[in-house]
Amino acid sequence: MTDAPTSSSSLADLWKARYRQPPPDGALPENVVVRSLMAHRSVRSFSTAPVPQGVLESAIAAAQSASSSCNFQAWSVVAVTDPQRRARLARLAGDQAFIAQAPLFLVWVADLSRLEHVAEAQARPHVALDYLESFVMAVADTSFAAQNAAAAFESFGLGIVYVGAVRNHPSEIASELGLPPRTVAVFGMCVGHPDRRHPTAIKPRLPQSAVLHHEKYAGGEEEIPAYDACMTRFRTDQGLSAQDWSTSVIGRVRDAAALHGRDRLRMELVRRGFELR
Amino acid sequence: MTDAPTSSSSLADLWKARYRQPPPDGALPENVVVRSLMAHRSVRSFSTAPVPQGVLESAIAAAQSASSSCNFQAWSVVAVTDPQRRARLARLAGDQAFIAQAPLFLVWVADLSRLEHVAEAQARPHVALDYLESFVMAVADTSFAAQNAAAAFESFGLGIVYVGAVRNHPSEIASELGLPPRTVAVFGMCVGHPDRRHPTAIKPRLPQSAVLHHEKYAGGEEEIPAYDACMTRFRTDQGLSAQDWSTSVIGRVRDAAALHGRDRLRMELVRRGFELR
Repeated sequence: MTDAPTSSSSLADLWKARYRQPPPDGALPENVVVRSLMAHRSVRSFSTAPVPQGVLESAIAAAQSASSSCNFQAWSVVAVTDPQRRARLARLAGDQAFIAQAPLFLVWVADLSRLEHVAEAQARPHVALDYLESFVMAVADTSFAAQNAAAAFESFGLGIVYVGAVRNHPSEIASELGLPPRTVAVFGMCVGHPDRRHPTAIKPRLPQSAVLHHEKYAGGEEEIPAYDACMTRFRTDQGLSAQDWSTSVIGRVRDAAALHGRDRLRMELVRRGFELR
Repeated sequence: MTDAPTSSSSLADLWKARYRQPPPDGALPENVVVRSLMAHRSVRSFSTAPVPQGVLESAIAAAQSASSSCNFQAWSVVAVTDPQRRARLARLAGDQAFIAQAPLFLVWVADLSRLEHVAEAQARPHVALDYLESFVMAVADTSFAAQNAAAAFESFGLGIVYVGAVRNHPSEIASELGLPPRTVAVFGMCVGHPDRRHPTAIKPRLPQSAVLHHEKYAGGEEEIPAYDACMTRFRTDQGLSAQDWSTSVIGRVRDAAALHGRDRLRMELVRRGFELR
């Protein structure tokens, strides 16, 4: 099976699983870090074993080591292990059972409240925080940190899945976690030991030529029909309904209802103190 | 020196450099991936040596292996090596000399144009793309991908620095790179061999207790005075002016002018086809 490779597989095997085609001619440089990153698959089925002692602290150290715009560190993370709270968060986040199942649920928070506090502690203005730019900066900072944590968790053999559905009900999530104004949950992350009875595969991506451009942006739409066929084959191999990528995308972008409440995100952000000027 | 550790140092030494305090009691789990992530420092001075053959392709394979919301893959990256173009981009992005100096400048692009193309190719609606939610999702996807690439570059001994200043002049950057509507440069990334004559240190971060919360958000502002003192010592050690973190933050959030043009980001995004409803 081409989707079985792990971080101890060769880069060539990981490449074949990710792109469903052989790597380019000539040896690609590789190492254990790159192989670990390339072996990612989202895990939505977890064993009951808790996350081992110290793993969260190591992963957060990796997260805090990621770049941060102006060293603003405009994020926080809430680690939820309480089963009742996980169950409530699962209901708020698209009713996804694996959130309640994973022993650890991290809620990653874009956090401008700390910067506001710093300015207010010295009775200074903080007008820049009211601009969309500051929110975008915070989302990027939060995402860099979370991705480093994801890489760290996976390097320990744990599985993760991001949960964008925490944006379905930002106010309710904020109430549940006691989030102050100028903070918002951007995404969640389930962490746990993958349930070996439900192994997951490396999902094929668009060929590099569709996303990597040289000197100027150069489209790449001509790659989509082949990728559609690739994704249909992948889903069939996984025992899922035969559906190509285009059909999946179209179903999810067609109207506001497809956003599952996230069409209200702008209003919710304003309500949470992000003016988004 | 506590800021000298590299990915081959112990986790304890990396922890001390990052937090300026010893790690918690009890062994923290660690491995080469976590140490490589923790050894990050931004590099703003590069040798003239080009990025070795194949490194970009390996790094982009790592980037594409990051999680992607709904498998939308809503990002692109433009790799710029042409010296004239790098010089023009450097001028547009805060006139920062290291952009022209780095042999490779990556412009990371939030890209909803591919999804629009998929829907339009089948004459289907794509109303969800007009919502702020879709832009936020694209920024997060782009950031996950870029952070994996950063980790890959650094694992090969290369240095990187993110460049948020590509958001100062989004339209001009788009013209330079031929970016279509519904795409925008979210940040740049310089890549190259660090100039050994100007080594950079691991920057201290807030203690974990300020960003990692358990079950409920719990502030952490009480940690800021000690961190202010820590950053002043760090800057003095680096031969920089003695400035604490609060002062640096206050200078950057005080007014719209401190955003260097990014106070127009919302208008620029609307102009580029993101309705941000």
